[in-house]
Amino acid sequence: MGNCIVPYCDGPKNTNVRWTLPAVCFVWQTAMVILFGAFVRYNKEVDAHWPETKIHENITSDIENDFYFRYPSFQDVHVMIFVGFGFLMTFMKRYSFGAVGFNFLIAAFGIQWALLMQGWFHHIDSTDGMIKIGVENLINADFCVASCLIAFGAVLGKVSPVQLMVMTLFEVTLFAVEEYIILNLIHANDAGGSMVIHAFGAYFGLAVSWVLYRPNLKESSQLNGSVYHSDVFAMIGTLFLWMFWPSFNSAICKHGDGQHRAAINTYLSLAATVLTTFAISSLFQKHGKLDMVHIQNSTLAGGVAVGTAAEFMLMPYGSLIVGFFCGLISTLGYIYLTPFMERKLKIQDTCGIHNLHGMPGVIGGIVGAISAAGATESVYGQQGLINTFVFKDDFKHRTPAVQGGYQAAAMCIAVSFGIGGGILVGLILRMPLWGDPTDDNCFDDEVYWEVPEEEDSADPVLQYNNHTVVNKHAEVTETGFTVEQH
Amino acid sequence: MGNCIVPYCDGPKNTNVRWTLPAVCFVWQTAMVILFGAFVRYNKEVDAHWPETKIHENITSDIENDFYFRYPSFQDVHVMIFVGFGFLMTFMKRYSFGAVGFNFLIAAFGIQWALLMQGWFHHIDSTDGMIKIGVENLINADFCVASCLIAFGAVLGKVSPVQLMVMTLFEVTLFAVEEYIILNLIHANDAGGSMVIHAFGAYFGLAVSWVLYRPNLKESSQLNGSVYHSDVFAMIGTLFLWMFWPSFNSAICKHGDGQHRAAINTYLSLAATVLTTFAISSLFQKHGKLDMVHIQNSTLAGGVAVGTAAEFMLMPYGSLIVGFFCGLISTLGYIYLTPFMERKLKIQDTCGIHNLHGMPGVIGGIVGAISAAGATESVYGQQGLINTFVFKDDFKHRTPAVQGGYQAAAMCIAVSFGIGGGILVGLILRMPLWGDPTDDNCFDDEVYWEVPEEEDSADPVLQYNNHTVVNKHAEVTETGFTVEQH
Amino acid sequence: MGNCIVPYCDGPKNTNVRWTLPAVCFVWQTAMVILFGAFVRYNKEVDAHWPETKIHENITSDIENDFYFRYPSFQDVHVMIFVGFGFLMTFMKRYSFGAVGFNFLIAAFGIQWALLMQGWFHHIDSTDGMIKIGVENLINADFCVASCLIAFGAVLGKVSPVQLMVMTLFEVTLFAVEEYIILNLIHANDAGGSMVIHAFGAYFGLAVSWVLYRPNLKESSQLNGSVYHSDVFAMIGTLFLWMFWPSFNSAICKHGDGQHRAAINTYLSLAATVLTTFAISSLFQKHGKLDMVHIQNSTLAGGVAVGTAAEFMLMPYGSLIVGFFCGLISTLGYIYLTPFMERKLKIQDTCGIHNLHGMPGVIGGIVGAISAAGATESVYGQQGLINTFVFKDDFKHRTPAVQGGYQAAAMCIAVSFGIGGGILVGLILRMPLWGDPTDDNCFDDEVYWEVPEEEDSADPVLQYNNHTVVNKHAEVTETGFTVEQH
Repeated sequence: MGNCIVPYCDGPKNTNVRWTLPAVCFVWQTAMVILFGAFVRYNKEVDAHWPETKIHENITSDIENDFYFRYPSFQDVHVMIFVGFGFLMTFMKRYSFGAVGFNFLIAAFGIQWALLMQGWFHHIDSTDGMIKIGVENLINADFCVASCLIAFGAVLGKVSPVQLMVMTLFEVTLFAVEEYIILNLIHANDAGGSMVIHAFGAYFGLAVSWVLYRPNLKESSQLNGSVYHSDVFAMIGTLFLWMFWPSFNSAICKHGDGQHRAAINTYLSLAATVLTTFAISSLFQKHGKLDMVHIQNSTLAGGVAVGTAAEFMLMPYGSLIVGFFCGLISTLGYIYLTPFMERKLKIQDTCGIHNLHGMPGVIGGIVGAISAAGATESVYGQQGLINTFVFKDDFKHRTPAVQGGYQAAAMCIAVSFGIGGGILVGLILRMPLWGDPTDDNCFDDEVYWEVPEEEDSADPVLQYNNHTVVNKHAEVTETGFTVEQH
Repeated sequence: MGNCIVPYCDGPKNTNVRWTLPAVCFVWQTAMVILFGAFVRYNKEVDAHWPETKIHENITSDIENDFYFRYPSFQDVHVMIFVGFGFLMTFMKRYSFGAVGFNFLIAAFGIQWALLMQGWFHHIDSTDGMIKIGVENLINADFCVASCLIAFGAVLGKVSPVQLMVMTLFEVTLFAVEEYIILNLIHANDAGGSMVIHAFGAYFGLAVSWVLYRPNLKESSQLNGSVYHSDVFAMIGTLFLWMFWPSFNSAICKHGDGQHRAAINTYLSLAATVLTTFAISSLFQKHGKLDMVHIQNSTLAGGVAVGTAAEFMLMPYGSLIVGFFCGLISTLGYIYLTPFMERKLKIQDTCGIHNLHGMPGVIGGIVGAISAAGATESVYGQQGLINTFVFKDDFKHRTPAVQGGYQAAAMCIAVSFGIGGGILVGLILRMPLWGDPTDDNCFDDEVYWEVPEEEDSADPVLQYNNHTVVNKHAEVTETGFTVEQH
Repeated sequence: MGNCIVPYCDGPKNTNVRWTLPAVCFVWQTAMVILFGAFVRYNKEVDAHWPETKIHENITSDIENDFYFRYPSFQDVHVMIFVGFGFLMTFMKRYSFGAVGFNFLIAAFGIQWALLMQGWFHHIDSTDGMIKIGVENLINADFCVASCLIAFGAVLGKVSPVQLMVMTLFEVTLFAVEEYIILNLIHANDAGGSMVIHAFGAYFGLAVSWVLYRPNLKESSQLNGSVYHSDVFAMIGTLFLWMFWPSFNSAICKHGDGQHRAAINTYLSLAATVLTTFAISSLFQKHGKLDMVHIQNSTLAGGVAVGTAAEFMLMPYGSLIVGFFCGLISTLGYIYLTPFMERKLKIQDTCGIHNLHGMPGVIGGIVGAISAAGATESVYGQQGLINTFVFKDDFKHRTPAVQGGYQAAAMCIAVSFGIGGGILVGLILRMPLWGDPTDDNCFDDEVYWEVPEEEDSADPVLQYNNHTVVNKHAEVTETGFTVEQH
């Protein structure tokens, strides 16, 4: 099969990344080593001086080390990034290697670059100018990479690994800036990153996809679909994202009630989303048959939309309401909006990230703004209000109402950063030197992977069938000839 | 292929759930929103007033929040419910969508309804009459749903999603009552739910399957089997259930030694089960070949059977003995009992839940009763005995011997509730309005799912073959014609 | 297909394990029950006397129970052992059952035997001569089994389950001795087991494979390869190993900074490995196409190599450097070394464990020795140095430089134990009574498993096509006949 794609390789577009991909990987990894050597050290809970720290800060037990508050959540988030996002995108019949493999590559690079970028903005130790990292930094790096993987979903199957590396480099950089503005300058609250991660990542990816629009893509459309088992693989991604989303939204919340509340709100929101997703999926299909695309994606929208407000006193029923409407909107998006965007707006959104991350992210921002504006001391308690919204230091005079306004502003910033950055990066990716595939090569692992010979060779019986078929032909054609010899 | 099942759709049975499924989902989810609004709030460890709670109850550190004792176990249980049970049932060649998809749907609905039902029975806050939830409630909700998914295993492939939603509604309700009687009134101990979850769920499902007996099911039997890759998918479910079972049995145990002991007992019991399962599977097959059905299911029996006694001083060897016999009995059940039940008792048990949950659940109840009756102060310590069996308040005068009797009684109640409830609910499900499939449609995703076109289109080489085949025909037939034109 | 392998069964080699496999399983599991009854009890953190222990040792909270320090890491390690190793080996087109199934069997047996062997060497309670177990023992048992599964990778597809059980019995025994010498006598540090687990396991497996060399194996080589979906299954194993490796290396580290540091070092090392693996894989393939074999395996080498030094002050950039070179070396190993070893050294290494565990394990030992020798009080702090290297009791006068020497010695011991033990056990496995497959049977599940009938029967449409094909033929041939009847 390898040779059957050679013509494409020799065609106008050269998909051979034999030099560019290794070059990018080596150069960037080397840069990481140097920069980490120059700037990154362990924070006081990771450093071997911890015994002395315990004495100074009069910490009685090792269990108070932040590691024990956050490591289980970190591992859940880690699974979401690598297995969740990776397998969610394996749904296509011949792009599973690219989905899970490139997801792996850009996430592994992204977390390193994110540790540096986020470190420079948030975790510089004033005493020695070094970035001090601990488990919370790992979680934030995973979060940052999530936004890159969301964007990956929009261009899945249409770009080369080199383009993905370039996109990740720029997106992580932009993310760190946007995050700094939203969390530090505006002092908005976004525990689960509805705005910072999802809205930003989604609109960034959509903008890139718009710039890279491929008018003749339909040609390879027969590969742009699933097969039975690839849909089952995708459910692995869906379920790990769905199950661990409570950890995602609670991972960097305040110790104690903050993490506890965020987990419960997310759990409830996601449960409600599943029911409305199934309902809409069945209602809008002929014969009321369910569509795997909706089940794989829209069931997760509730987790996105409850992200910003996850730590707030949203109340159990509030979470259910958020989930209820997100399942509904997200599924309708797949049915009506995605085709419309492709036809009219020339945005080809392979995984429909606009329905899974874009709209739910914006909804999350709005829910966050409203629930923040509505926060009262009677509901939160005096101390609780201060803790939850961190009305301290420069912000100790901020009121919930004002906070609500800033939350709304944050949402607009996230979206604008996404669109603006996406267009910019998209233009860079249009340069003809990144080895992207031709329209006929899209959604095909053959281009960048050594793909094993056809499945059926695994299946002697099927081989046998084909064999007999061939024999039969021989004989038949022979008959044909003898006839002509009449 | 869609059209090839239309005849069935137009047949006596209408499997079109386009109106019923969305209706049920919307109505029930709306009801959940209203009921949660009226009855459910956060408990004191989740509420933003936590800082004040810490002062009142003089809690020194946030790490004492129950979240940190139970959240890791909760996430493991969560994985068992959605990936474990979901993928365990993907073994059939054309019912993987239904297995993992409907598992997802009923679990997501069930946990919401369970939070309400269990809340009303166990977690009403007397001060304001509200249900106060925390992470432990989430675990209990997942537990309750587990019993529904067990029952799902018995009717897998033979019912419609609407029937499953109805079954879940009633089963969760019955579960809460049964659980209340066993844990509160009888004050039995059932950490891992051998009785409350497994025995109840299994006999409930078997009773439903008995009422819904399909005498002519053999017809579609060619779909009632696995293919190579579907068996591998099922192993994902098996392994996640097997690995996380120690978390399942220890999730709601007492803090400290309770959780620690339950995890170790379960770990050991499961290890022993694996060996005896492999032994019996090989011993009873021709040529000593292993059967995937046994490996996928019977290896888990030890986790079920050690559930009730997991928190007791069962001793490591005690756990091994339990696992040893369960692997043996469960595998023999698959070989002899399941066929017998189908032929003689007219119980069609798709996944063989009687061997995986039914018998082991009963064994678990018996083991629990015996080990409770045999508990002594020398083994547990005075305080340990009180802690483990909660001999406090109304029950402070109860002796281990008496407790053993109550444990046995609890087991009988669980089974009777299962059988009785199952028959009742089965009769409801027999009503002709739920869109269940005809015998010919059973075990076929085509009925309720949009299934992608055939696998082989994923395989250019095979396509190529087919292509040439068609061409050859054309040419040949042509020859045929030209001949006739002679 | 079942019957087509009968001739082999009747051939010189008898692969029928109907009596041997059950016998081994029953005898050994019974032995486990007896030995656990005689020797194994709960330790004080698991025992119901814990309330009294708390008072004696003046422990203020249940959260101080070691369970809460280690259980989340234990569960991650558990997933690596059963899903990680199991699925990593499912890459072959017709050996997925054997890979995941036998992995399950030997791991379940190995952990029991490991609890005993390691207990006798490390956890004998002098007061009553009993082995006292807790969660840390479970982790160590899983670690021990990891070395067996590594060795399994070298002989995958070429041995019978009985041989695997025998190999595991001996390997666990040897492991416990080697571990005792390295950790207790030499007092080397090996948190992640680069030497004790990986180097030992790899060279053990390679030695076994060398003794069991099959000169004519090429014959069945068409089965010794992957198909599209089996490669995707293998990625499940790869990713769970990759994601949870930080838990593996930190699971038994000291509480607090030790676990925290080990997790971060591993996280960084693994990230760097991914980039260099992708780079080399693309650079050395024609058309720069990526090879799934490299992505599935070499991306993990960084986790192995950082194991010994994970708990040291390796510094973030140090971890990146280790990962950088391991991805490079491991991938080159797959491209050049593995074929060389098979041709010249007569070592058939099915999974290339020498590249994934062998070389990286040795590198890990060297990195450990160097970083230990270079440890200074200024970097670790006085107390930190003592804590990290446990310079206490008999070893309180040992200096970092000396420790470095002992680390290097430990590495040599691990490798020699592996090679020596492997040859020994290999000779035992060559005895003709274990039911190993003929060369033609290698890498084929048919030999030891009931394999379901061919995949395509799962696909009505394909069946339909075949059907019509046949019809067409019929008709065409008829035409042919009618012609001849002219």
